[in-house]
Parts: sequence; structure tokens; C-alpha cells
Amino acid sequence: MARQVVECVPNFSDGRNDETVRLLAEAVRGVAGVRLANVSADPDHHRTVLTFLGAPEAVAEAAFRAACVAVERIDLRTHQGVHPRIGAVDVMPFIPLRNVAMSECVQLAREVGYRIARELDVPVYFYEHAALPGRPHDLPTLRRGGFEKWAGVVLTEDRAPDAGPNRLHPTAGAAIVGARHPLIAFNINLNTDRVEVAQHIAHTIRQQRQHVPQLTGVRALGLLLPSRGIVQVSLNLTQPERSPLWWVLEYVRTLAAQHQVEVLETELIGLAPASAIVEAAAEYLQNPALSEASLLDLWLDPDWQPD
Amino acid sequence: MARQVVECVPNFSDGRNDETVRLLAEAVRGVAGVRLANVSADPDHHRTVLTFLGAPEAVAEAAFRAACVAVERIDLRTHQGVHPRIGAVDVMPFIPLRNVAMSECVQLAREVGYRIARELDVPVYFYEHAALPGRPHDLPTLRRGGFEKWAGVVLTEDRAPDAGPNRLHPTAGAAIVGARHPLIAFNINLNTDRVEVAQHIAHTIRQQRQHVPQLTGVRALGLLLPSRGIVQVSLNLTQPERSPLWWVLEYVRTLAAQHQVEVLETELIGLAPASAIVEAAAEYLQNPALSEASLLDLWLDPDWQPD
Repeated sequence: MARQVVECVPNFSDGRNDETVRLLAEAVRGVAGVRLANVSADPDHHRTVLTFLGAPEAVAEAAFRAACVAVERIDLRTHQGVHPRIGAVDVMPFIPLRNVAMSECVQLAREVGYRIARELDVPVYFYEHAALPGRPHDLPTLRRGGFEKWAGVVLTEDRAPDAGPNRLHPTAGAAIVGARHPLIAFNINLNTDRVEVAQHIAHTIRQQRQHVPQLTGVRALGLLLPSRGIVQVSLNLTQPERSPLWWVLEYVRTLAAQHQVEVLETELIGLAPASAIVEAAAEYLQNPALSEASLLDLWLDPDWQPD
Repeated sequence: MARQVVECVPNFSDGRNDETVRLLAEAVRGVAGVRLANVSADPDHHRTVLTFLGAPEAVAEAAFRAACVAVERIDLRTHQGVHPRIGAVDVMPFIPLRNVAMSECVQLAREVGYRIARELDVPVYFYEHAALPGRPHDLPTLRRGGFEKWAGVVLTEDRAPDAGPNRLHPTAGAAIVGARHPLIAFNINLNTDRVEVAQHIAHTIRQQRQHVPQLTGVRALGLLLPSRGIVQVSLNLTQPERSPLWWVLEYVRTLAAQHQVEVLETELIGLAPASAIVEAAAEYLQNPALSEASLLDLWLDPDWQPD
């Protein structure tokens, strides 16, 4: 049978404790058949994003083991970060990469989600493709209010979890587990400490995404990064084939310039499809013919095919 | 045994006859275990560059079959292009990509070179790593004077071929076959028809490459593209890890601006290492942390490892 590859990109609510980050990574590396591709820990977001991939069942096992570390070590009662969150295992998506159907990732998400609920006593919500029929399915809705709003509250009706106890775990909150297509998590840092500039840009993006094709599926938040005294437009490009990375950056540059602010740098959280990076290079190099098929390294993979 | 991958990037002296280009490509595609990754045919250079890769012996067979097509169909007596050349199979490098030593590519080059000499009656020079001891080894020296200078002349001493007859083939000239590391063939087109601008920029690059680290190993020619009424700085980055593609482009932009000329577009001939493309994107995106390890697609190859 053709080799199957699933990706998992869980977000855990600790980006400051090096030992916790190390143990999360080690939990994943300890599973045979899984490759840990990226660890992004951010002290201001107070959040760590792991990116790993491999055979479906191995990835599910690694995801569960990392969840165990997070539930054991992360205490939301003392957690303060600039990014919205509801739990220690804040969000855990499974992504079909090769020879895997979305329905198989839905199955993995359910399997891991029920296991988290049962073995770790954490309420679980399923999201996006893994959402149960008639239930809320988008991340912002499920996370709304955050840990503080729901701690100690009986979770009923719309807030009732899909699995596990009907109260947040006292320290680990709730877990949101799901299946989705690849997205690009991309932050643009601006050379100002005025958070309202980043918020205004994020608001404009949310307002314009109905009208501007290149903003389709772009989620945006404006955040202050206290440790650095700068602000950030934190973006998720959920339909990256429709919203070129370079185009979104130029859009933010233009909006920032209206506030006499410049882009200081950008950050990629986790990985990005090669196509998005090649598109940016093509724009810069004035080389419209450049494509993924121009990358020597990709041709070394016997299973890789140009589109 | 670990899967071996060799690349071959032969340059044939016809970029205008569609049927010849099609037959060259078909010769390569017809060999099992070989993937044809790129076909770059240019009417002004009057040259076609094929890029293919696969198992060593399969790549050698495909290279020889393409050489047969070229020798049969290409007549240098009526060939006029802007790029220097001495034969129908003008240059044929073998490049070690994975689990292959340079010495194995030298062996392949010799095997294919002797076969071209013997079966096609074409004199062959071996170049770079495949050059025979005490013989000239660099391409510009071997190609100097071109087909016209050496047609009908008895080839002796420095010009004596390494294999085959000591006169050029009447229509196919000579073939230069060798082994080398990966390089980037990169053209920068300028919005002027003054060829002296491109020549001056190329001259400056050749002059400065002893002094400027980012120009190490950069070969440059200034050419007119008659079919388009513009000029081109045609570059080979023979040590691409030392000369960032984006940096060389900025350097040419600066030199061109001194002539009130701008870059119109760039062209990649064949493939480029992912690192060179990612570096360009990193520069544009102001994202110094971006690396090949940020590309999701590369992680799908189980044999790929970050540096």
C-alpha cells in the first residue's frame, strides 16, 4: 500500500518553560515512525506549536503522549499570554498530507480526542472537519471567552463538550481536537509599541476578506508583544492557495505605512507549503515561471509529482 | 542499498526546432528509472537544456540516447546563436545528488563520453572533475573559438580530444562531457537593447569575483536577445552556497541602474537548490529564520534530512 503521511500541529499553552517545551518535543520524538519537523515556542504568546508527521497511527500516539505532558505540566490558572486559549492542549489538528483522506484524519482526531477525555479527564471539543453534526465547528467560537470565562462553570448546551466531563479540567481547561487542510501561520511584526495599529490592521483584514480575493480565509489578530515592546499582526492563511503570502505581506505593509509604521520582520510558525515560499521568491526575483518544479530537492523524492 | 540519484543537465545546440526539442525529451523519457524534470529551450541562445535524474546507469543511458538525437539532427554549419558552443552535444555534466560519490559521476561521464566517441564518431573532451590528468578542464577554455574555429582543423596538443577522432564531426562538432557539483544557471534580462550594458555588467562581475565573496564562482556573459530586442546578463553560479541568488540579482540591479537600466525579469534554466530559492524568499519576507526545513513538501520525503 502507498505510504500514508499525516501531519499534526498541536498548540500547547506554554512557550516559556524550557523544560516543558523539551518534554513535549521528547514525547513526540519517542514514537517510532514520527518525524518532529518544527518546534515554535513563543514567550509572548506563551504557546508552543509542534509540527510532526508520519504514519497515521504513529502520529496519533505521538499527539496523545504530548497531550499527557501538557495536561500534567501546564496550569492555566497562572497562564497569561497574548493569544486566545482555553486549555493546555489548546488546539490539536490532524492534516492529511499524502495518500490519506480527510475522513481518515477525522477518525484520528476522534480517536485521540476520546482518549484525552477518557484517560486525562479533560473535556474535548471536535472542530472543523471533525466537528460532530449540529455542533459548533470553528476555532474562534469554541475558544471564545477562554479558560477564565468557563473555569468552574457547568458546560451545557452550546458549550457542552463533545467528550469528557462537563466542567473544564481545573488546570488544563479543555482541548479542541480536529481535522483540517494545511494552513500557514504567519506573524508580521511592526516597529511600534502601539497595539492599536496592529489591531486596526487586523480589523481591516477581517473586514475586507469578504471583498478582496487575496484575503479569502485569512484570519488576523492584532497583538502586543510585551517582551519586545513591539506589536504583531498574527495571521492564519487558512486557504493558502487563494491568499499568496507575499501579497498579504504587501497589504499589511501598505496599511502599516498609513500609520507611519514599518514591517520589522516576519515569522513563520511551523511549516509552509513550498508553493507559498516559491511564490514569494518568484515575486522578488521577477521570475513568473518559477514554481515548485524548479526546486531540485523536491525531485529527489520519488513520490513527488509536479501539479 | 540506499537509493542512488544522479542528475544530468546536457545542453544541446538547438532551441528553435520544436521537433528536435520534442525528440530530445522523448529520448530521455523513454528510459525507465529516469525522470525528466525540466526542458528549457531558448531561441536566442539557440540551445536546449534538459534536466533529468534517476539511477546512475539509467541516467547514463538516457544521456546517450539524447546525444544520438542531437548528433543526428543538429547541424552546426548553419547554427547561429548568441551563446558560445562547439558541438551539438555542447556540454553534458553528470552531477551526484544522493548516495553517489563524485568519482562515480566521473565514471559515468567517461563511460558515456567514450560511447559517444566510439558509436557516434564525435570527438569528446572530458571536463571539470572528469578531466583527464594534465588536460584542460574548464568549460570556457574547451569551448574557446567555437565550432567555426576548429571545423576541418586537425586537433592536436591542447586541442586533441580525449576520445574519438582528431577532427570535429562535420555537423555535430565536439562534445564536452564531465562531472561537476550542482550550479544555478540564471539569466537577468534588462530593459534595453544596448548589449554593451550587459557586457559591461558581466565584465564587472568577472573582475570583482576575486574580491567580493558573494561573487565567488560566478560566471557572467553579456548577450543580446535579438528576437526580443533586449539584453541579458547570463550567469552561472558555480558555488551557489557562496553566492546568494538574491544578492547577485541586487548587485546586477545596482550596476544596471548606473546605466539608467532596469531588470525586466529573470529566468532560471533548469532547477535550483531549494536553499537558493528559500534564501530569496527569506530576504523578501524579512524572515531570517526561514530555511529549507520550513518547507512542508520536503518533509514528505522520508530520505530528506535538514542540514
